[in-house]
Amino acid sequence: MTDLTLALDAMGGDHGPAVTVPAALQALSTNTQLHLLLVGDPDAITPLLARADFGQRSRLHIIAAESVVASDARPSQALRNSRGTSMRVALELVKEGRAQACVSAGNTGALMGLAKLLLKPLEGIERPALMSVLPNQRKGKTVVLDLGANVACDSTMLVQFAIMGSVMAEEVLGIPEPRVALLNIGEEETKGLDSIRDAAALLKTLPGLNYIGYLEANELLTGKTDVLVCDGFVGNVTLKTMEGVVRMFLSLLKSQEEKKGRSWWLRLLKHWLQKKLARRFSHLNPDQYNGACLLGLRGTVIKSHGAANQRAFEVAIEQAVQAVQRQVPQRIAACLESVLPESD
Amino acid sequence: MTDLTLALDAMGGDHGPAVTVPAALQALSTNTQLHLLLVGDPDAITPLLARADFGQRSRLHIIAAESVVASDARPSQALRNSRGTSMRVALELVKEGRAQACVSAGNTGALMGLAKLLLKPLEGIERPALMSVLPNQRKGKTVVLDLGANVACDSTMLVQFAIMGSVMAEEVLGIPEPRVALLNIGEEETKGLDSIRDAAALLKTLPGLNYIGYLEANELLTGKTDVLVCDGFVGNVTLKTMEGVVRMFLSLLKSQEEKKGRSWWLRLLKHWLQKKLARRFSHLNPDQYNGACLLGLRGTVIKSHGAANQRAFEVAIEQAVQAVQRQVPQRIAACLESVLPESD
Repeated sequence: MTDLTLALDAMGGDHGPAVTVPAALQALSTNTQLHLLLVGDPDAITPLLARADFGQRSRLHIIAAESVVASDARPSQALRNSRGTSMRVALELVKEGRAQACVSAGNTGALMGLAKLLLKPLEGIERPALMSVLPNQRKGKTVVLDLGANVACDSTMLVQFAIMGSVMAEEVLGIPEPRVALLNIGEEETKGLDSIRDAAALLKTLPGLNYIGYLEANELLTGKTDVLVCDGFVGNVTLKTMEGVVRMFLSLLKSQEEKKGRSWWLRLLKHWLQKKLARRFSHLNPDQYNGACLLGLRGTVIKSHGAANQRAFEVAIEQAVQAVQRQVPQRIAACLESVLPESD
Repeated sequence: MTDLTLALDAMGGDHGPAVTVPAALQALSTNTQLHLLLVGDPDAITPLLARADFGQRSRLHIIAAESVVASDARPSQALRNSRGTSMRVALELVKEGRAQACVSAGNTGALMGLAKLLLKPLEGIERPALMSVLPNQRKGKTVVLDLGANVACDSTMLVQFAIMGSVMAEEVLGIPEPRVALLNIGEEETKGLDSIRDAAALLKTLPGLNYIGYLEANELLTGKTDVLVCDGFVGNVTLKTMEGVVRMFLSLLKSQEEKKGRSWWLRLLKHWLQKKLARRFSHLNPDQYNGACLLGLRGTVIKSHGAANQRAFEVAIEQAVQAVQRQVPQRIAACLESVLPESD
């Protein structure tokens, strides 16, 4: 592996540097070819580097940024006031070629707007989409998009998401002729919103795409499709519902109350079984696949969950490394031309 | 309890009479005051009654209906061709006062359209909504609506759903000043779709309502709200995502593969612990709360999941019994007048 530089928005997310800096240090330890540019307030970042060793320090640079995009700012407002923010500076580093990708846990709408403004969408793509690769029951992977970059989507956007998802599944995950489905509230053709029915009609006519029809949300983890497409509002709600239920199960598994008077060996065995079960379900833990990729741009941008803990933010950094190594934007650009319906 | 008569659409759902008839017989055994009108094709229903005892037979009547609403029919088309269908005949029995409620596992859109046409919405309600009471982590209950009766909703509809949900939580579940939240993709005021932001502005002005703001979908089961309001598309996707994940967990819990060579007592103990865990999670099993109530009508209509098994359809029948006993439509009607914003 050759050297690789990422720009981290160190100030973004609910916890800011308290999470991003320790995660950055851990990523530098794990990956010795990695260089990180920590963008943000040096006074907030520097104290957290006290325990960094020489190897970590030498591959880490602080890039000062004077302000932060507010998590509750409207995208338009955030864009107007974005100059000098850690998010914008991190994206500019990618634009200038000083970093190969950017990772931020900040305001999703602002990240989408700024990334589009600075890095530009690929030819043929109107709006980039947030994509995650979710684990499924069959131990395979499912590409899901959009997860919240676009709250409302028309049929053209859904079709573009389907194409990008299909390229991602084929070129990056190595799934031949990936199955592509639209998320809907029924499998019958008459179900759902107009935008979805129109997208279905268009997808059927695309020769390079293996469109298999509608899937309902209870099939999210069953592996019946390789790519699942929906608008950003629905995608975000689906992902968060899933995360909420998974986290509840994992916490219930751990928190079984103990009855007194039970023999020690029974308690020990129960504890062992619980740990085993928790491990068995651990690949479903949302922290393990944090980091959604903003697909459809001329650069790589990874959006971490705002509430990400250190482990989850490390995973988002790792996603950025993989997206760069697998040349996701370049591969999507190369495939788009042959698959996209010709525009007039 | 006094006698109570329900009309069952025996032909609706993926399995039709093979599920509805055994469920009906079981419900008659459990509830000795219950009378059931089984609506559908007598030739399909009668053979399934072979094992019914005298007590069950005496409280069960077949009402012939010559056709069935197709599960993939558009609501408008289903309405036009509805005369003589088991769904319509079952609703007519409620309209005529021969039954106090109707249960159907058939086409959701058609059930909504026909119920509105035949039973009429309550004063002040534009569109009825599908509501379920979900179990939550704190062992409480959360009222969630709309779950799929209206794929697209404007702010007025969301406000009406909020009011109906609040009445349901207070009057039927006995929760004083129930907390009401809107489902959104962020907790900040600027997030989400226009319809949701407009509904939030309206809900803040309603004096009789304890509106607490936006909640994200990962809070669905945490008990942070008593009522969660969303449009029917999003509600349906949320519910099905949750069901999919819960079913996957329950099946993984049961299906732990066994290593050979392990001593018999260890295997036995593991089996016992697994059963215990499965029981602990059983209240989350979607079969245990099947049956969504169509709120906002002048009569009681329960929609069962189309894929319901016998146990789940029994639960839907039980939901209908409870809705009748608790006089849901009457209570909502009585409260609406005092809470609803005055129309011009």
